[in-house]
Amino acid sequence: MINGERLIERPLRWGMVGGGRTGQVGYKHRTGAQRDGTYRLVCGAFDLDAERGCDFGKKIGVTADRCYADYKELIAREAAREDGVEVVSIATPNFTHYEITKACLEAGLHVICEKPLFFTVEECDEVARLADEKGLIVGVTYGFTGHPLVHQMAAMVKKGMLGDIRIVDLQYTHGFNSGDDVGAGDALKWRTNPKTAGPTFVLGDIGTHLYYLSEIVLPHLKIEKLLCDRKAFIPTRAPLEDHATVLMHYDNGARGRLWVSSVNAGNMGSQRYRFVGSKASIEWSDAHPDQLIYEVQGEPNRIMHHGMPYLEEESLAVDRMGALHTEGLGDSWSNIYLWIAQAIDAKRRDDEAFLKTHHYPDINAGTEGVRWLENCVRSADAGAAWVDFK
Amino acid sequence: MINGERLIERPLRWGMVGGGRTGQVGYKHRTGAQRDGTYRLVCGAFDLDAERGCDFGKKIGVTADRCYADYKELIAREAAREDGVEVVSIATPNFTHYEITKACLEAGLHVICEKPLFFTVEECDEVARLADEKGLIVGVTYGFTGHPLVHQMAAMVKKGMLGDIRIVDLQYTHGFNSGDDVGAGDALKWRTNPKTAGPTFVLGDIGTHLYYLSEIVLPHLKIEKLLCDRKAFIPTRAPLEDHATVLMHYDNGARGRLWVSSVNAGNMGSQRYRFVGSKASIEWSDAHPDQLIYEVQGEPNRIMHHGMPYLEEESLAVDRMGALHTEGLGDSWSNIYLWIAQAIDAKRRDDEAFLKTHHYPDINAGTEGVRWLENCVRSADAGAAWVDFK
Amino acid sequence: MINGERLIERPLRWGMVGGGRTGQVGYKHRTGAQRDGTYRLVCGAFDLDAERGCDFGKKIGVTADRCYADYKELIAREAAREDGVEVVSIATPNFTHYEITKACLEAGLHVICEKPLFFTVEECDEVARLADEKGLIVGVTYGFTGHPLVHQMAAMVKKGMLGDIRIVDLQYTHGFNSGDDVGAGDALKWRTNPKTAGPTFVLGDIGTHLYYLSEIVLPHLKIEKLLCDRKAFIPTRAPLEDHATVLMHYDNGARGRLWVSSVNAGNMGSQRYRFVGSKASIEWSDAHPDQLIYEVQGEPNRIMHHGMPYLEEESLAVDRMGALHTEGLGDSWSNIYLWIAQAIDAKRRDDEAFLKTHHYPDINAGTEGVRWLENCVRSADAGAAWVDFK
Amino acid sequence: MINGERLIERPLRWGMVGGGRTGQVGYKHRTGAQRDGTYRLVCGAFDLDAERGCDFGKKIGVTADRCYADYKELIAREAAREDGVEVVSIATPNFTHYEITKACLEAGLHVICEKPLFFTVEECDEVARLADEKGLIVGVTYGFTGHPLVHQMAAMVKKGMLGDIRIVDLQYTHGFNSGDDVGAGDALKWRTNPKTAGPTFVLGDIGTHLYYLSEIVLPHLKIEKLLCDRKAFIPTRAPLEDHATVLMHYDNGARGRLWVSSVNAGNMGSQRYRFVGSKASIEWSDAHPDQLIYEVQGEPNRIMHHGMPYLEEESLAVDRMGALHTEGLGDSWSNIYLWIAQAIDAKRRDDEAFLKTHHYPDINAGTEGVRWLENCVRSADAGAAWVDFK
Ligand SMILES: NC(=O)c1ccc[n+]([C@@H]2O[C@H](COP(=O)([O-])OP(=O)(O)OC[C@H]3O[C@@H](n4cnc5c(N)ncnc54)[C@H](O)[C@@H]3O)[C@@H](O)[C@H]2O)c1
Ligand SMILES: NC(=O)c1ccc[n+]([C@@H]2O[C@H](COP(=O)([O-])OP(=O)(O)OC[C@H]3O[C@@H](n4cnc5c(N)ncnc54)[C@H](O)[C@@H]3O)[C@@H](O)[C@H]2O)c1
Ligand SMILES: NC(=O)c1ccc[n+]([C@@H]2O[C@H](COP(=O)([O-])OP(=O)(O)OC[C@H]3O[C@@H](n4cnc5c(N)ncnc54)[C@H](O)[C@@H]3O)[C@@H](O)[C@H]2O)c1
Ligand SMILES: NC(=O)c1ccc[n+]([C@@H]2O[C@H](COP(=O)([O-])OP(=O)(O)OC[C@H]3O[C@@H](n4cnc5c(N)ncnc54)[C@H](O)[C@@H]3O)[C@@H](O)[C@H]2O)c1
Repeated sequence: MINGERLIERPLRWGMVGGGRTGQVGYKHRTGAQRDGTYRLVCGAFDLDAERGCDFGKKIGVTADRCYADYKELIAREAAREDGVEVVSIATPNFTHYEITKACLEAGLHVICEKPLFFTVEECDEVARLADEKGLIVGVTYGFTGHPLVHQMAAMVKKGMLGDIRIVDLQYTHGFNSGDDVGAGDALKWRTNPKTAGPTFVLGDIGTHLYYLSEIVLPHLKIEKLLCDRKAFIPTRAPLEDHATVLMHYDNGARGRLWVSSVNAGNMGSQRYRFVGSKASIEWSDAHPDQLIYEVQGEPNRIMHHGMPYLEEESLAVDRMGALHTEGLGDSWSNIYLWIAQAIDAKRRDDEAFLKTHHYPDINAGTEGVRWLENCVRSADAGAAWVDFK
Repeated sequence: MINGERLIERPLRWGMVGGGRTGQVGYKHRTGAQRDGTYRLVCGAFDLDAERGCDFGKKIGVTADRCYADYKELIAREAAREDGVEVVSIATPNFTHYEITKACLEAGLHVICEKPLFFTVEECDEVARLADEKGLIVGVTYGFTGHPLVHQMAAMVKKGMLGDIRIVDLQYTHGFNSGDDVGAGDALKWRTNPKTAGPTFVLGDIGTHLYYLSEIVLPHLKIEKLLCDRKAFIPTRAPLEDHATVLMHYDNGARGRLWVSSVNAGNMGSQRYRFVGSKASIEWSDAHPDQLIYEVQGEPNRIMHHGMPYLEEESLAVDRMGALHTEGLGDSWSNIYLWIAQAIDAKRRDDEAFLKTHHYPDINAGTEGVRWLENCVRSADAGAAWVDFK
Repeated sequence: MINGERLIERPLRWGMVGGGRTGQVGYKHRTGAQRDGTYRLVCGAFDLDAERGCDFGKKIGVTADRCYADYKELIAREAAREDGVEVVSIATPNFTHYEITKACLEAGLHVICEKPLFFTVEECDEVARLADEKGLIVGVTYGFTGHPLVHQMAAMVKKGMLGDIRIVDLQYTHGFNSGDDVGAGDALKWRTNPKTAGPTFVLGDIGTHLYYLSEIVLPHLKIEKLLCDRKAFIPTRAPLEDHATVLMHYDNGARGRLWVSSVNAGNMGSQRYRFVGSKASIEWSDAHPDQLIYEVQGEPNRIMHHGMPYLEEESLAVDRMGALHTEGLGDSWSNIYLWIAQAIDAKRRDDEAFLKTHHYPDINAGTEGVRWLENCVRSADAGAAWVDFK
Repeated sequence: MINGERLIERPLRWGMVGGGRTGQVGYKHRTGAQRDGTYRLVCGAFDLDAERGCDFGKKIGVTADRCYADYKELIAREAAREDGVEVVSIATPNFTHYEITKACLEAGLHVICEKPLFFTVEECDEVARLADEKGLIVGVTYGFTGHPLVHQMAAMVKKGMLGDIRIVDLQYTHGFNSGDDVGAGDALKWRTNPKTAGPTFVLGDIGTHLYYLSEIVLPHLKIEKLLCDRKAFIPTRAPLEDHATVLMHYDNGARGRLWVSSVNAGNMGSQRYRFVGSKASIEWSDAHPDQLIYEVQGEPNRIMHHGMPYLEEESLAVDRMGALHTEGLGDSWSNIYLWIAQAIDAKRRDDEAFLKTHHYPDINAGTEGVRWLENCVRSADAGAAWVDFK
């Protein structure tokens, strides 16, 4: 159980690019980071609108002189300080991730970047090399995967409680974009434009969450081939998609199916994961995140609750609220941020042994998400054809 | 609301082939048929084991002299009686449907046959012609589709309450065949052998239910192309499948996805239908059949209950139990049987006007199920490739 | 598993009083009775409006000459026939149960009567004596208690799977009478008038179902004292109640609470039973009747599904539809009717040994329901005071 | 929507008494307080074991010199500092609340105290007078009531969407104390001893949450009389109770029923609130906190999700995570802490106008909880008799 005792040497000096007053995801970063004494927000370039960004920064406790007009200024001015920022979170539209990440790394700063990480695997590989050279950490905020029941699922699969994995069923859908985009806000505009969103809309926006979570639960399974059928029900979104189905064949013979959509009218909270094995299945949904359904064939179905002593140690170790008390999305983000902080701390201490076994959403996790997107797009562009995963 | 008042002229003289003491589905036929004074069970060839069949027949009220050793004897001996049987239900393994149906029709008997109707569309077309020539009805027992909320869904789509249909999501899975088939009973043995089951296992066994129900709800949508990826996780079942995913493109641009499996370990009651439109979605699951979920984008999700005055007339008309009282699978079968009885009655009275608008699972419904299976198999055999639907 | 094979010597000749075209509960009697070859409907006095009753009777298969104007005529004329009726179901308003039951018994007919049985325990005792003298059966249609999961609960309690029973939590509420009774139909009018309903409205109308089911599950527990707080939110219903809470102290120290209401606005399907023991609890609700929740303290909660092999033999024996297939309210009624038929059959064969262990809702069950109501009213009239149960 | 921008002048200097490493509730205080830049933890007397408390304090960011051995030292030493603590949270066993609160107030410190506030209303009144004299705030951490859907319920009742309130149904139960207390930890030991827990166990421990939440939703309803039936199923807990039922009559004629228990074996997350009006009902449960069920009689039941635009402004204003993203218990606590901070800030600025309309769990809320407990105990001691509420 996590109770807020600091698990690293001292709080990291932390800054943000993006995530300003109007940004959708900024608050989740801050609530995630500022929980366990691991990060202290010291500076930011929070907004495209520099003035609004500064006003906002002050309201969240940054001193005026460290609210910057843009990330370049942030990097330059902080470099000049003795108590300069050490790690920067990037919560800006997709197309800016690559350049901001590179700039930060080059300035010797650790990075925590939003997903989808970059546009291409090539970019990812390049940045991974850079980070490696510089001895810096790049974390990726797959924010849902900090939930203790995600780690319960991974532990159960690892222990063999499901038998051989046969079927993977993944879904992340909502209906918020069922109407057309007339009068859409900024957050939707950049998401539906390939220049700012990258090669996908919902696949990258929500599908990468599904994919990363499935990698945590099934670390040893690899996709051999996949097929992606995507479509823009609102035509102005083409060539990007607001709906896609992906079929996957894994190297152990398992079959996967994945559904992402933002035109699933009326649908609330359908982030749903089901892992089927030869003996049993597990299912977890964001709609009832406190519960994990465990179904052994031929036995009564079981509902497991987070925080209960019968769970695996891997799950209990990362629980914050305790049984009967709702573990919220903010708690999940706190775990992600904590794990990244531990990685940065280890890096600072040159503790490679720790890093070898420490698990967190690192740059590889970001890269794999982008790789999966590339394969999806290649399949879709070939007419929803099967493609070998590469 | 249906209250048991007879809706046809007089009860039909009814017989059964198959559905004996050990048969899985026989009881559902009888409970469906013997509810509204529409059918009177007068004879049967209930079992491959003639003696057991006879003993059983007597226990369910058939006189000894009308318990026959096989369907041929049934047809021959009943033909000789003035009060001979008029309609025969066939609840035997798939491979016998075609020959028994033909024999019955040739003897001038109406038929109620189990699904999947036959092995090929060619057989279906031939039998349809025969039935037509003879002026006889062939009904198919898609037993789940009598539920009042199925007809509520159809009425809502028809009224435009969903807007344009965009996504169809269908699932019928269970885990009863997660283990291998060592020591399997007869019902599983014939299902996993192409000679007795036909070209599919779960696609025909449970997938046809999904498909027919979707046709009721979406009568105007046609599949343009589909892709079927099937697999036998238990290798001895190959070339038949215990798991399959089907993707469908409809002529209006809608996208469908369908999942059938009998190795979804531990999964109970997952017959799930979701129809997504541009304005709203509806969802119905066998696991909570009394409820229909109606989700208008941007409004609170609604749960509709069967038997409530706010439902459409099409639904209330076929309700039996009334609100708050569970409408069971038996009630659904009763409706199917009633509708077929009404068709037979109309046929007897030469009431073609009635037949023109009367809806029931007829031979076309059976044929379309087989056609869909043929397309699925063609796709699967081509390596899970897209095929034009024909 | 029940598959329709007749379990008694021959079908009983059966008649009905009440339950006509406009009656709410008549269809449930008929669908319950006519399933297993146990009852053959031969006559009836179905309606206060004799003509409508006769028309209705013919539509449900009764010959015109055996559709009677009232129960007296039915009794008299059937007595004169050799193939006269043997058992009569009474589905009329409460105030008529006593006189019709007595008349039937005196004419040598078995009776199946609706709940609440009569107005007073005194009447019950008198009729019980009469039935006993005459060697006749009186069954009471507590129609929900035929569900296989009810008997699963009883078996689990009996086996000690819950430990010592501590808490009983019962609820049967709906909101159909939230508005006032202006323009109310007959069925509501007689229910809210003490002359026709008896001393209670919802306590008798729905509360007796809760109480009888709890007696099946907890046969060895006796109430020592209770307190009933009742109220008519719609004042014209006073002195009868549309809402009541009952607290109960059992002889083993257990505590019970029960809620009945017909003004629980918007509430659908809340017939809910929870039995809490020192080790585990079980919960069953009419809203999801296919599932039984079994909660062992400190273990994952379990969901049991009807028809599954892991259930107790007592439950599987009375299952009709099988796992994955909804067991409806009609199936539950079929079991009740079957069990009463078996009792009548045994009585006819003088098989007292069978009767000794055979369980069905008998006249004692009816009497206990009335006794419980008397105690509730006594408490309520004393200002919702505790009263010793007697 | 709350996005972390500071809503008060400057962060408050904050300390804690109790809530140390082994304390159950301490983490919730810290995660609640340290979210919006409203509190800065500067000191603490976290533990009865002073050394452990100090070690812990340092791990959560308090400097060694401000980790104190006990609350007296904390008060004395902080008073001597210019930058001394301004507000102290008390997260210690019940029996210490009164003396620590008084000491803090006397030292001029604002207080945030755990529930149940004190043992008697007399103590509450005395402390309220003291706080008033001193111009200080006393907040009470009814931590569940910060959830946006709680405030949605209050707004809906206020707008008349339910009609007249008729029935209040409250439940907070779990089964963690189903076994006996042999080997129980400290947190259970002090809870079952009247000297340390006060006059109640579960009524105070969990029942006060129910009661306060109902006061928020129904501010204008007053209890006229109540009846409390309590019991210790584990006898060593007597005279305190591990199970209780409370019936309540409100001044508008409404009826309430409340259930608290810690021996409801296996029960998870059953904090359930239902408010029934003449037109509609609302229901909210901790088990699915993201959803509010809204049931208008005669219409489909509605499920409302937190963060959705169709909710009332009162709810949206206090949402943190946004639709589709789980609002956890930590978020609820953050709101409580924020509202108390705003009260303290207003008090510091002498802004009595703000305080007049500002709503937060204040000392009156604490007092009312204690008053309700006193009435419950009075009733229980009189043999579960009705008592006038006073
Ligand atoms: N991990 C998750 O769960 C999650 C959830 C939502 C969004 N995201 C990701 O977060 C990123 C941001 O998404 P959003 O929905 O918050 O977008 P948004 O459009 O709502 O907000 C973007 C914010 O970044 C600022 N910004 C834009 N360009 C900037 C620049 N060059 N320098 C500084 N600030 C700049 C904007 O002013 C705004 O405050 C995207 O990559 C998105 O995919 C992740
Ligand atoms: N509509 C549905 O919901 C549903 C459900 C289950 C089965 N089915 C279909 O019903 C059919 C039967 O399936 P089942 O599961 O009951 O099979 P089963 O193997 O359990 O039973 C088959 C029955 O038919 C008898 N039989 C076999 N061959 C016969 C013959 N030549 N003459 C007379 N009797 C014969 C057997 O003795 C047995 O009683 C299949 O086509 C199946 O697809 C439909
Ligand atoms: N077991 C259950 O689940 C259940 C459910 C509903 C009703 N009930 C009980 O069934 C009984 C009837 O209730 P209902 O809701 O059907 O009532 P109802 O008013 O809807 O119908 C009563 C029927 O009885 C007929 N009738 C009335 N008096 C008669 C008489 N003297 N002779 C012949 N017919 C007569 C009426 O014409 C009508 O057909 C009541 O005792 C009620 O408590 C039981
Ligand atoms: N608001 C809620 O949701 C909620 C939840 C749990 C507990 N509570 C309340 O919180 C209070 C504490 O409960 P708990 O479960 O955390 O208890 P606990 O026994 O788990 O922890 C009590 C903590 O207080 C410390 N402590 C005890 N006496 C102290 C003293 N005199 N000075 C300093 N520290 C002292 C202990 O060392 C320990 O760290 C109780 O009043 C309880 O009712 C409220």
